[in-house]
Amino acid sequence: MTSSLLRTRPATTNAMLAVFDDAATLRHALAFEAALAQAQVAVQVIDEESARAIAASCGAFEADIPALAEAVALAGTLAIPFIKTLRAQLTDTAARDLHRGATSQDLADTVLMLQMKEAGALLAAEHARIVTALTASARQYASLPAVGRTLLQDACPIGFGLRIAQWAVAIREAAADLDRVIQVHAKVQLGGAAGTRAGMHGRGEAVAADLARRLKLNPSPPWHARRGGIAAMAASLGICIGNLGKMARDLSLLSQNRIGEALEPLIEGRGGSSAMSHKRNPTGCQVALSAAARAPGLLAGVFAGLPCELERGLCGWQAEGPILAELCLLAAGSAEAMAGVAQGLLVIDAAIVENLSNAAVGADIGESVQIVTEILGPLRDAT
Amino acid sequence: MTSSLLRTRPATTNAMLAVFDDAATLRHALAFEAALAQAQVAVQVIDEESARAIAASCGAFEADIPALAEAVALAGTLAIPFIKTLRAQLTDTAARDLHRGATSQDLADTVLMLQMKEAGALLAAEHARIVTALTASARQYASLPAVGRTLLQDACPIGFGLRIAQWAVAIREAAADLDRVIQVHAKVQLGGAAGTRAGMHGRGEAVAADLARRLKLNPSPPWHARRGGIAAMAASLGICIGNLGKMARDLSLLSQNRIGEALEPLIEGRGGSSAMSHKRNPTGCQVALSAAARAPGLLAGVFAGLPCELERGLCGWQAEGPILAELCLLAAGSAEAMAGVAQGLLVIDAAIVENLSNAAVGADIGESVQIVTEILGPLRDAT
Amino acid sequence: MTSSLLRTRPATTNAMLAVFDDAATLRHALAFEAALAQAQVAVQVIDEESARAIAASCGAFEADIPALAEAVALAGTLAIPFIKTLRAQLTDTAARDLHRGATSQDLADTVLMLQMKEAGALLAAEHARIVTALTASARQYASLPAVGRTLLQDACPIGFGLRIAQWAVAIREAAADLDRVIQVHAKVQLGGAAGTRAGMHGRGEAVAADLARRLKLNPSPPWHARRGGIAAMAASLGICIGNLGKMARDLSLLSQNRIGEALEPLIEGRGGSSAMSHKRNPTGCQVALSAAARAPGLLAGVFAGLPCELERGLCGWQAEGPILAELCLLAAGSAEAMAGVAQGLLVIDAAIVENLSNAAVGADIGESVQIVTEILGPLRDAT
Amino acid sequence: MTSSLLRTRPATTNAMLAVFDDAATLRHALAFEAALAQAQVAVQVIDEESARAIAASCGAFEADIPALAEAVALAGTLAIPFIKTLRAQLTDTAARDLHRGATSQDLADTVLMLQMKEAGALLAAEHARIVTALTASARQYASLPAVGRTLLQDACPIGFGLRIAQWAVAIREAAADLDRVIQVHAKVQLGGAAGTRAGMHGRGEAVAADLARRLKLNPSPPWHARRGGIAAMAASLGICIGNLGKMARDLSLLSQNRIGEALEPLIEGRGGSSAMSHKRNPTGCQVALSAAARAPGLLAGVFAGLPCELERGLCGWQAEGPILAELCLLAAGSAEAMAGVAQGLLVIDAAIVENLSNAAVGADIGESVQIVTEILGPLRDAT
Repeated sequence: MTSSLLRTRPATTNAMLAVFDDAATLRHALAFEAALAQAQVAVQVIDEESARAIAASCGAFEADIPALAEAVALAGTLAIPFIKTLRAQLTDTAARDLHRGATSQDLADTVLMLQMKEAGALLAAEHARIVTALTASARQYASLPAVGRTLLQDACPIGFGLRIAQWAVAIREAAADLDRVIQVHAKVQLGGAAGTRAGMHGRGEAVAADLARRLKLNPSPPWHARRGGIAAMAASLGICIGNLGKMARDLSLLSQNRIGEALEPLIEGRGGSSAMSHKRNPTGCQVALSAAARAPGLLAGVFAGLPCELERGLCGWQAEGPILAELCLLAAGSAEAMAGVAQGLLVIDAAIVENLSNAAVGADIGESVQIVTEILGPLRDAT
Repeated sequence: MTSSLLRTRPATTNAMLAVFDDAATLRHALAFEAALAQAQVAVQVIDEESARAIAASCGAFEADIPALAEAVALAGTLAIPFIKTLRAQLTDTAARDLHRGATSQDLADTVLMLQMKEAGALLAAEHARIVTALTASARQYASLPAVGRTLLQDACPIGFGLRIAQWAVAIREAAADLDRVIQVHAKVQLGGAAGTRAGMHGRGEAVAADLARRLKLNPSPPWHARRGGIAAMAASLGICIGNLGKMARDLSLLSQNRIGEALEPLIEGRGGSSAMSHKRNPTGCQVALSAAARAPGLLAGVFAGLPCELERGLCGWQAEGPILAELCLLAAGSAEAMAGVAQGLLVIDAAIVENLSNAAVGADIGESVQIVTEILGPLRDAT
Repeated sequence: MTSSLLRTRPATTNAMLAVFDDAATLRHALAFEAALAQAQVAVQVIDEESARAIAASCGAFEADIPALAEAVALAGTLAIPFIKTLRAQLTDTAARDLHRGATSQDLADTVLMLQMKEAGALLAAEHARIVTALTASARQYASLPAVGRTLLQDACPIGFGLRIAQWAVAIREAAADLDRVIQVHAKVQLGGAAGTRAGMHGRGEAVAADLARRLKLNPSPPWHARRGGIAAMAASLGICIGNLGKMARDLSLLSQNRIGEALEPLIEGRGGSSAMSHKRNPTGCQVALSAAARAPGLLAGVFAGLPCELERGLCGWQAEGPILAELCLLAAGSAEAMAGVAQGLLVIDAAIVENLSNAAVGADIGESVQIVTEILGPLRDAT
Repeated sequence: MTSSLLRTRPATTNAMLAVFDDAATLRHALAFEAALAQAQVAVQVIDEESARAIAASCGAFEADIPALAEAVALAGTLAIPFIKTLRAQLTDTAARDLHRGATSQDLADTVLMLQMKEAGALLAAEHARIVTALTASARQYASLPAVGRTLLQDACPIGFGLRIAQWAVAIREAAADLDRVIQVHAKVQLGGAAGTRAGMHGRGEAVAADLARRLKLNPSPPWHARRGGIAAMAASLGICIGNLGKMARDLSLLSQNRIGEALEPLIEGRGGSSAMSHKRNPTGCQVALSAAARAPGLLAGVFAGLPCELERGLCGWQAEGPILAELCLLAAGSAEAMAGVAQGLLVIDAAIVENLSNAAVGADIGESVQIVTEILGPLRDAT
């Protein structure tokens, strides 16, 4: 989104914004070109002198970002004006050796994978923060009898901590899957114009492997038109966002007046109302639920791009980058909001006791305590 | 999207970016507050002096946008920090009269409707440009026999202009529906905290009507939790984007090598390849097809928000603003790209003739010419 | 869905199932072929004798539906095996005159439009039932002060009937729009192989007009690859389903224990729990909310088909029929469930009064009563 | 879908229909109840006599399916009328012991998981068939120079087999992921009314483990409101469908007249046109592309259900069953269609040679052959 005011509605973190901003995109693009040249020296596709010149130019590159953005918009791809600008700063030989054997999508996909790895690391930290806090709360309240609620109606009692443990394990599993998916699918892209690694003296596989090693990505044969890994990333982000939304849904219901069993912590400047100054809105939950409302449609957009055309398609991959970025922004906003909520979660014992007493369903919480342990593991390996 | 480099993939226009940027959002928010105060003077809810002071403050308002954006992100709504900042510049009475009887969502929804009207006007102009150009081409080529293609296989002949006429009428009808939907649903929002227009001395209907008149929006009872109009706007934008995508799909197929019946115009700096300098990519079509790949999922996000909670919901409407803005950005990018394509469309007669001759399906184009006239109307009222 | 047991989860009505079942599909297909022949007699494309023979065969047609379904699945279209079977029962001349100038999609689209008109009539009746019941309830409770709730927190008071009036007007407007959309877009399809109305002696427009008149559809130039009308129908169904979901969301929240302001009526056999016999689940709301959860993704599928290929596409329109049918089934199930709920709605005054007193927000319901009248109109023209 | 004629458009296999039909649903439901009773005998929650009686009743159960379906539709869940019918056939003790400690969703989720395992096995077999055939073709044509195409324009040459190898590996990886996801997430559900395993004398974990073993599902703590596994299944099905759609997209483009590099095999009764008897439509591709058009929206519906309410939600899980079933039906139809296509794939060498010669891009296929081997592995471990 273009407006930071409007954007606050799909709230996100500054750290995640920085992963996908212009400076980061450019930094990764420069790293790609420099590392490609170095990899090509290593297997003797280009001269060391070229690589040094390219690395120097990449290190010293200064972009007029608005002008570059205009040119990129016109060209339909970052690579063309970017490479042209970079080439203009090089001698003939180095200019010819720059971006050698690579195509626009090699640059675009590799940059996106580098950004996804950074995004994944940010999300992992937030998820861990949430899981740690929820795990402690789940244990603390494991045996506190509370009304269970199904189809929004009072049902049998549960241990209040079981509910929290279910949030924790859902987020923990989703976070682990996101890590796995990014580990597996963050692959270097290096196929050249038609995905054959032409123009690298038959040493393209070695170049790609060396490039991957330098960029800390997985080596891979070209995957220009094979986007299952991208779809898997989108789906995994969607499950993270959805599971955070589940916690938010529950908490927003539990914090209703007349129920009041749990509340978001009070945060200065958050949750107010422009019309009712006494009101305390579940704004953290709102952030997570808004993200959860948007994610399903966004990831559908990535899946719609799977049947792309031939060696490199005409619409799918061009749409994926912005969607993955948006999903990461939403995931970060949601995770940060729920991390704050998890760490400051207010459980109101008195209301829980009173509601249970009004529900007249007894106090048999079954195996709630045991299930909490099954779910979260014994005390030692909490997260 | 936060990166203008990445953003070029879901390409859009600077004019549409300006409709939804921070400055525009703030300008409309100030207009809302000033007009609300004036409307409340008109029906004697507040004093003229307050309204004058409010108007003066709105006129002179200077925001530290990054700081305001931070506060908005924290608060979960624009209104709270915005009103607080504005109030700080007013005397006690005027401060109390500012935003009187209004709630955060009154401001947010009204601003969004003002932006949608501006967006609609921009899109209408681009759509008209496309329809005019396509209508002329359709007539020019109405009787040129060409291979018809169904399920991607050669079928019976058509008049080449019939294909273009089908694009034209699809875009024309979608554009007319978008105009209609915005005309009908661009309503002022003024309900106050719980949608009852409390706090306006029982003269809320008159205030809302006067406010609507000043802002050139439709008067309306409060619609905080009734979002069908927003969904209709999203759907109508989706049909525009989809129909432009249809034209782009066809043209990308027609411009394949070995078929070559029609081409995008050559535009300096557009359509190149970073690996193959001779190549001519259908970049305008790519822009429109990428937009068409994203729109369905985006609008699904709006529809998912319809079942919002009670008087004002917790996730739906907070997600709508960014989605509508994104749909408008995609629609503008697509329309601008296809306007350029329509105006410079290259129809290659020789290839059309050769392909038809190779297809061995005769040259009976049926009622193609007549259908072009049925669709586009007689020569006078072209658009 | 293939299982009537599983199917109960996306519950629907038998009447709507009958609109889209095999018998109905076949009945409309026969009506199309018979009417096409008659229309072609009227403008002298075929002989009256042929048309009589075709009408007789259509009238006497008996299908082995499982065998036909197998053949249809193989062929990828209903028309081919259906026409082949029908032709086998005719003399040579009549066989040649059958389906003359028509293509598979002419049959498929026209049948779908006939089904959409029937579906629209069923839905209109249910929607009217809901609106009538809600309108009466809204008036009855217009001035009963109740807690308003925003972001799931107690806010200022509202007249309880205002909430109901908002449901009523949302459903009324969505129903009116669905009627409008079906009226506008239920068009005959008759374009022949490539959409040129070839093979009808230049009298195709008259044939299409006559065919439309016989089938009570709108006349139209061919629209094989122009699917905006279908998308508009899907969107309009989606808004109906979403607005019914909104009513269900609210009621499910209001019927929570400890809130208990309104309840679904008790219906024998509905709303029970297999584990807790005392429990009273909001099963009508569940039906409507499940439908609302499914609709956004379904309609995204229709929008994804807009950029179809050339004269008749390869995937979009083939996917639309099942999706529109599914949306109609969901809409019918939702509308029937909420009609029962609206007619039997239990408003619990005592709980409303108690909750308001606990909320300590006063009893100023602002202009609630007036807004109910604005929304619903004066007493006379209730619906 | 209710019409087998309409249903043919989202074509599927009879085997997959049988996985989700009424008889199968009932068979699994009976197996659940019988196995639950046996598991409860094993850990001494109920008597062996009860379990024997329950097993006998389950074995002899005969349902009036239409009547049961009506009752299920009314109740909003299969379990209530099903258990009631079954109980009526038992003595008091056995009736009380039937379904002991279980809730509706325990039955519904466990049945769904049993169906997903069967569906997964069917899909695995079809996917293997495709991969085997494509692997052979990829090797056969690995070194045949052909025009590569990017953004639908002629690009550098590729080995024709590389394109096929990319299809093969995409489908192979998606199939492997689907297997993995089903293996991991096909878990027994046994939580009772509020997910606490109450009413099983504190031996619920053992009961659940024994039940899982009998039904060949994974043991698990209750996961009533933790739906990430379901979402992962939907996503994995979506990637399978999307990757099959990719193969179909490419083949439909390659089989265009004037390009004609590869064709679907001719199958009697398939691919005809009701208007042009000579025409050969890529009907297998149509099936796969229609499925790919529908899948993204369907899986968005599953993801939308993640933020479900408290211990068991009101709309999400009720919508999941039909959506997963629909995705399986689409996946099966797509896989069967593409298996036939892969096994009979016609590669037209002459057209490939001619197109390459016309493209004037040389014949340097880079490392195509090597990439085929990288992707498919050395000759031995082909699939």
